[in-house]
Amino acid sequence: MLSNIRKTRVEWGDCDPAGIIFYVRYFDFFDVSTTMLLERALGMKKIEYLKAYDFFGHPLAETRAKFRLPTRFGDEVSIETKLVDIGSRNFARVSASGWPKKS
Amino acid sequence: MLSNIRKTRVEWGDCDPAGIIFYVRYFDFFDVSTTMLLERALGMKKIEYLKAYDFFGHPLAETRAKFRLPTRFGDEVSIETKLVDIGSRNFARVSASGWPKKS
Amino acid sequence: MLSNIRKTRVEWGDCDPAGIIFYVRYFDFFDVSTTMLLERALGMKKIEYLKAYDFFGHPLAETRAKFRLPTRFGDEVSIETKLVDIGSRNFARVSASGWPKKS
Amino acid sequence: MLSNIRKTRVEWGDCDPAGIIFYVRYFDFFDVSTTMLLERALGMKKIEYLKAYDFFGHPLAETRAKFRLPTRFGDEVSIETKLVDIGSRNFARVSASGWPKKS
Repeated sequence: MLSNIRKTRVEWGDCDPAGIIFYVRYFDFFDVSTTMLLERALGMKKIEYLKAYDFFGHPLAETRAKFRLPTRFGDEVSIETKLVDIGSRNFARVSASGWPKKS
Repeated sequence: MLSNIRKTRVEWGDCDPAGIIFYVRYFDFFDVSTTMLLERALGMKKIEYLKAYDFFGHPLAETRAKFRLPTRFGDEVSIETKLVDIGSRNFARVSASGWPKKS
Repeated sequence: MLSNIRKTRVEWGDCDPAGIIFYVRYFDFFDVSTTMLLERALGMKKIEYLKAYDFFGHPLAETRAKFRLPTRFGDEVSIETKLVDIGSRNFARVSASGWPKKS
Repeated sequence: MLSNIRKTRVEWGDCDPAGIIFYVRYFDFFDVSTTMLLERALGMKKIEYLKAYDFFGHPLAETRAKFRLPTRFGDEVSIETKLVDIGSRNFARVSASGWPKKS
């Protein structure tokens, strides 16, 4: 199914006193990537499809994440999002995964 | 078991163009509340117990959230954290829930 | 003139790998305090006065900050905002200062 | 003198209920660009030069910003940082400017 990969770097302001990414920032990364995935699916930028379909935003019903490896300041991560399923009542499930690359 | 409740307000900078909380900010709220819960459990501030037990931080293994109600800019929310379980290998499970109060 | 003081704590997710507040977070603190100052001045919550005066938000024209002392994770800071001046064309100047308290 | 330009996009989570960038996020953008500028100046990644010169981070003494144009959700902005001056006691001054491009 549809997928999107982008690379981003874990910046100083994304990291906590342990020198690794503050995990909440991963959800910021995933949200950007989910936007990109939907933009690719619809062939429009988000600001355009919100207007085209006349709605304010797509609510998130549920999210979860497992954190398997610490990602350090300065690491480049690849974020991959995939459209997993489109269910009834217009629910879509998206998977997002990020993993650090050796820099 | 141990629990903690605190109130916080959803601020302008926490909200997105739909005028509701950008859901990622909820994880910021939950993290602060989890810190407060652990501080209460240990009777020490986080900066103290990190030193006392000589470790850098407590990694998060997994998190998940369901979003049932939109929380609007200016809403006061109550965040409740509970220590659910302490498992083997020092894993702890914490539940956090937040709900808007009528303002 | 009008002023507002509030205390807040520098949380784990506010700090960078140096273990001190990531300075950008201070602007988040100042913005919340400026909102509180304006709410006190107008006797309404921000969401109410935006409606009452029918505008979308108050744009910030300029801001600046000097950072004199490092604020560490876990420090409680006092944020004081003051309405300094109301100029022509509805410009207002607000000063905000934050300083860590010995914990 | 040395300069750096990068493009970034104003994302949903960067914007406030007015549908424009929450101005504090501009400081996040500027910080990333300042890091990139210093990395270019020193020929090392930040995590490397912090180790090489054995220090924890470069404190910011002062910052200021003027906001001339609203930047909307979805806008691409160009962030330019320039090394303006290296003063006594190892102080450096960096200018950063960002402006939206017609998308």
